This record gives sequence, structure tokens and C-alpha cells, in this order.
Amino acid sequence: MKRNANLNALKPSYLFPEVNMKRKQFQETHPEAQVISLGIGDTTEPLDPFIAEALAKAASELSTLAGYSGYGPEQGIKPLREAVAEKLYHGMIEADDVFISDGAKCDIGRLQVLFGKEISIAVQDPAYPVYVDGSLLQGVKKIDYLPCNPENDFFPELSEKSDLIYFCSPNNPTGAVATRQQLEKLVAFALKNRSIIIYDSAYASYIQDKNLPKSIYEIEGAKKVAIEISSFSKLAGFTGVRLGWTIVPKELLYEDATSIRADWNRITCTIFNGASNIAQKGALSVLQKEGLEAIQKTISFYLENAAIIKSALEQKGFEVYGGLNAPYLWVRTQDLSWNAFQKFLEKYHIVTTPGSGFGPSGEHFLRFTAFGKRSNILEAAKRLKN
Amino acid sequence: MKRNANLNALKPSYLFPEVNMKRKQFQETHPEAQVISLGIGDTTEPLDPFIAEALAKAASELSTLAGYSGYGPEQGIKPLREAVAEKLYHGMIEADDVFISDGAKCDIGRLQVLFGKEISIAVQDPAYPVYVDGSLLQGVKKIDYLPCNPENDFFPELSEKSDLIYFCSPNNPTGAVATRQQLEKLVAFALKNRSIIIYDSAYASYIQDKNLPKSIYEIEGAKKVAIEISSFSKLAGFTGVRLGWTIVPKELLYEDATSIRADWNRITCTIFNGASNIAQKGALSVLQKEGLEAIQKTISFYLENAAIIKSALEQKGFEVYGGLNAPYLWVRTQDLSWNAFQKFLEKYHIVTTPGSGFGPSGEHFLRFTAFGKRSNILEAAKRLKN
Repeated sequence: MKRNANLNALKPSYLFPEVNMKRKQFQETHPEAQVISLGIGDTTEPLDPFIAEALAKAASELSTLAGYSGYGPEQGIKPLREAVAEKLYHGMIEADDVFISDGAKCDIGRLQVLFGKEISIAVQDPAYPVYVDGSLLQGVKKIDYLPCNPENDFFPELSEKSDLIYFCSPNNPTGAVATRQQLEKLVAFALKNRSIIIYDSAYASYIQDKNLPKSIYEIEGAKKVAIEISSFSKLAGFTGVRLGWTIVPKELLYEDATSIRADWNRITCTIFNGASNIAQKGALSVLQKEGLEAIQKTISFYLENAAIIKSALEQKGFEVYGGLNAPYLWVRTQDLSWNAFQKFLEKYHIVTTPGSGFGPSGEHFLRFTAFGKRSNILEAAKRLKN
Repeated sequence: MKRNANLNALKPSYLFPEVNMKRKQFQETHPEAQVISLGIGDTTEPLDPFIAEALAKAASELSTLAGYSGYGPEQGIKPLREAVAEKLYHGMIEADDVFISDGAKCDIGRLQVLFGKEISIAVQDPAYPVYVDGSLLQGVKKIDYLPCNPENDFFPELSEKSDLIYFCSPNNPTGAVATRQQLEKLVAFALKNRSIIIYDSAYASYIQDKNLPKSIYEIEGAKKVAIEISSFSKLAGFTGVRLGWTIVPKELLYEDATSIRADWNRITCTIFNGASNIAQKGALSVLQKEGLEAIQKTISFYLENAAIIKSALEQKGFEVYGGLNAPYLWVRTQDLSWNAFQKFLEKYHIVTTPGSGFGPSGEHFLRFTAFGKRSNILEAAKRLKN
């Protein structure tokens, strides 16, 4: 067996395991250090009891005749598809265009199988690593990096045509949120060039400013050009529970006017087997009134974290972006990202994520996550200020 | 956007949704019919309360500071990897070669991403459709179908070299279980030809005959040539809960002697994000003494179902295979499979799965599943006998 040549295009390690390894190495040589992680964007606040009990009830009921369920529909249970369409998209989207998944990352991998290797892609630079890594795994050769930086308000210049455009807002890692005008430009570009947008709205629930769009489908014409991927991970603290969704509108067609949704359904049935029945029932509770109120509290809490860190960094003279409608701060550094990472680790015992890990334009930046226990956030802020 | 040409190689519909559609059509025109499904192999018995309560406890605890967890290791939590290695492989396998997944089918899809398109594959014919469908999605061109039938004791002739050999035992769909001698032959062939075996042991827990191997790793040398995929679905009724595992031994190398396991780890970190924390804690309870006893009861129950259907079919003069150490019966039919499927549906109101859906050698066979409520199984047997 020869190694699949596509693997040669990948760095040996995925970004976050690499960050963890460096942290571990430091901790081993500095066992006394109280290291605080503002690196990987992982939720830390317990679930609201209302949601946890819905999960627990779904689990308990599996021991009863009436409550047991085996394979569900690969596309997700109907009430959840309906609740996502109604509560999160307010009817902009039809329930049967919502496909429930075990997480946005996993569905990105399957979307990459759907579109294959004979395509060109464009990604915001910096970007969540899976867009590029997963495309390289499929053998995609043409990747256009679209620099996003403070100078262009984190909105890329759109000039060259690509088959797929990955676009994430609120952005991971920069915390930038695209305005309505910017998304209109993006959709118009895609319509004109017959590109498909993979719109990652995993952090949409962090948008508090009512003028900022939470979904690409708020833009007219978007159903003809956009797939939206999203997740309960950061919306409801389901990072460990695993649940997400992908929207593939019926209006989205190949150039020969056949349905992309039909192929996505085939992929979903073939190399996926549906999301966990327990997680899906838990998600139903998230989308009820009491659940929505509970998650808003947690989101506000994380946004307060962001404000605390932002203020501390700014007091030290750092140039800080994001963190207002997003759980990430994007901080410019004099040093190269990995050197700055090492300095923050050694000097403050704070783990960050090196911006260069997200793409060439991330060099000289660090990403700080706002996910964390308040005591850690306050302690991190104190260390940064002193 | 042009359609990915790999999709053209696939039939428009995956087998089981197609079976469901035909059932639905029949039910609509025959609303009075009490249709019994012996089609898709889906578990029907509630979980033992011991296991359901472990799942529920894991869910409840997510609302506590101590019990909350976010992203777990992509490879699975350590105690579960250890329990799988110890309780199911009795130490034959090292815990860090066990990768926990959200199900065997999903991991097959990711293994296919790992190996890419520039390979030749061989599959038992008939076989679980995902081996071929997922390979076609990757663009694999060379697929060797190895006929398995009563005449060769369901063990294929191994002659031509392939890079990957998919092998499932107990077999889905035929219910045949490979003997130790047969697996020795398979491993020797792979060692000689430097093939890699993808060994699907999802039904291993149905093996009651102590002389039959439950894992490929019971065969000497297998670690050098085999990846084993398996699942809690049929082991513990977790079809809806979603949990499986894949074993990629350190001894498994590419022809240049580099590690396949390292690449699998990269894939796991890149397009997967770990299995559900709730499901993993539930699986820990499955592998405790009380859990193992509970699942054995359920497995025995399904095997009794198999015996009831087998006996009824044999009384009607059908030639029936499998069902002794496997939850599937493989039944020869005079008619073509889809015609026989339709006849069983119309005459007995029983849904089966057409053998031809599993490959060309499945023509003139039907698969019957032993998963089902006892009342349905008895009613199906009664209808068949009359």
C-alpha cells in the first residue's frame, strides 16, 4: 500500500493538537505553573439543567419500549429540522433543507467528499484549518487565499472566480462579523461567477448587534449560491455532545440545473448514519423558550469574558480585534505568531493559538478565546496587566 | 459548479432508503396491511436500565461544574479505549490503537478518505453497500468483486492482488462466519501480496460458537495487515446512540515502512471531532460486568428470533443460510431479488432486503434480519408457514 499522495500536502499535525502538545511540554518542564488555556475554543460552562435533563430523559427512555429508538432518519428527526428552520431561521429556510449532523467539522469533511477534487476553492485568510486541510485531503489543487486583515476590514477582495468560497462569520479566528453590505457583495459575486459559498455560521449566536446578519440566507438570492453549516457546539455548549446542521437549499443547482441537495442527501445516507438520538432530543429543548433563554445567558457570559480580556490586552497596548459579536479576539503581535505564542506561555502561562496556524495572513497575530471559567479569565487579565 | 464525476458512478439511491420507499408505497396503497419489517438491520429492544442510566447520568452531569466536558480527545476518552482493548480484545490490542468513532459506517467513509482513489479494492460479493459506494465516491476505479456463495462456503477465492480487501464476518448480508482456517488464509494472502484488510466485525458479538474467531487479530500476523472496524450498534443496541471504534495497529505500515496509524490519527483530528461524551460514558457501562451480561441477553434474544424465522422458512422449503452466529438469514429465491422482495411484501406483508442490493452475487437471494419485536417475529413466522 502506497501512501495517498493527497496526505503529503498536509502538515503532519492538525493545529490544535500541536498547540496542546506545546502546552504539555511546557507544563512538564514547569510543573508549578498554573497554565490558563485561551487556546482552543472549547466551551467551559455547564449546560443549563433544563437542557441537561432533556438529554438525560432521552437517554433514560431508551430503556423503555415506548422510548427506545434505533437508526433515525439520516437527515435528522423531523421535529428538530422543523425547530431549526423555525426558531433559528424564522421560516427563511424549509425544514427539509436542514440536515442534522454530528457537528460542523464532520459535515465540512463530507461536503468536501461531495464536491471532490476537480474544483477550485477560495478561503478567507486566516481561516479555520479544516477548509484547507479537508480540501487537500480530497486532492484539491487550486486554493486561493483571500487576505482578511484590519486594513480591509477583514473582508476580502473578490476578484478571481472559484468554484467554492469558504466564508465564516462571525469569523474564526479574527472575530470579525460581516455586515449586510459585505454579504450582499459576496452573494452578488457568487451569483455572477456561479460560485458556491460554504457559509460557516457556527458562531452566529454571538451576534448581539441587530444590524448584523446571522445567516447568509438573510441576503436575497443566497439560496441559489450558498450552503450554510452550523453547530450546537458554541450555541448551546454541545462541543462534547456533538450536534450540528447543514442547510442545502433546493434552489442550489449545478450548472446543468440538477439538484445539489439530492447528492448531499445521497452522501448523508451513504457515509453518515444520522446524529445521536439523545443529542437531537437535547437540541429540541435548546430551541424551546426556556432553552433559548438559558443559552443566551451563557453566550452573554462568554462575551463578558471577551470584554475582560480585550480590556486587559488593550491596556497593555495591544491592537485587538473581534470579541464584540464573537467569542474570539484577534491580537496583533510584533513577534512571529509561534514566537509570540511561546512568549505568552512562558511569561504569563497563558495558552493562545498562533495566528499563522490559520493561514499566511494570520502571521503576527494571536487568537484568544473567550471560552473559559470566569476565575481563569480574571486571573489571565490580571497577569496580562501586571 | 460541475457535478463531481465520482457521483455518476453511484446509483441515485442508497439501498435502505430505497427499501423504505417501496415499503411506504405499498403501505399507501394497502393501508390495512400490518407490514412487518425484516428489512433494515435495526435494533428494536430497549436498552438495559443499567446502560440507559449510565447514559442519563452522563447527560445530567453536564449541568454540573465537575461533570461538564467539552471537546474530548478526537480518538476517544482513555478509559473507553482501555475498556475496549481489555474487555473486547482481551489485551490482544493496545488501547492507543483503538479509535472511538460515531459508528462504523462513518469511519468507513473516513478510511476511504485516508486511502484515496489511486488504489484497487476487493470486496466480498455480496457486501454491505458502503464499501463500494464510499469507494466510488472517492473515485476508486478498480473494484474486484469476490463471489461468496453456498458453493464456496461463502469464502471467496483469493487470487488477484488488491491494495484493500474489505472483509466482513459475521457477514452482512449472508450471515456466514469465517472460520479460523479461512481467516488464516486471508491474512496469509494479505501478507504475501501486501494488501490491507478492512475487517468489519460489527456483528462479532453474535458469535456463540467458541471455535469461531471474533476478531481478525486472533490470527497471527494480522496486526501487520488489518484494520478492524466495529460498533456498539448491534453489540449494545446503540444504533441510535451512535458509537463505534476502529483499530489501526502500530504494526500496520505503508510499503515505505511509515505509519498508517499516524495518518489515521491526522484524519481523525481533521474531519472528525470525537464521539459524543454521553455515548462514550454509556459505552463504558456496556463493558462493565453488569452491562456485558445485559447485552448478552439481548443478543441471545435476537438469535432466538433468527431461529424462529429460519425454521419457518425451512418448513416452507426455502434454502436458508446464516442466523446461527449472526443476526442475518440469507435465503435463496427462484425469483430475481427485487421480484422476490415484492412478492414477500405483497403476499406476507413482510419487508426483506433484496440480495442484489448487496452486489451481483446477491441476486436470487433475500436478506432477513433477526432484529425485531418477538410478537412481530412470531407473526411473520406464522404468515410464512400458512
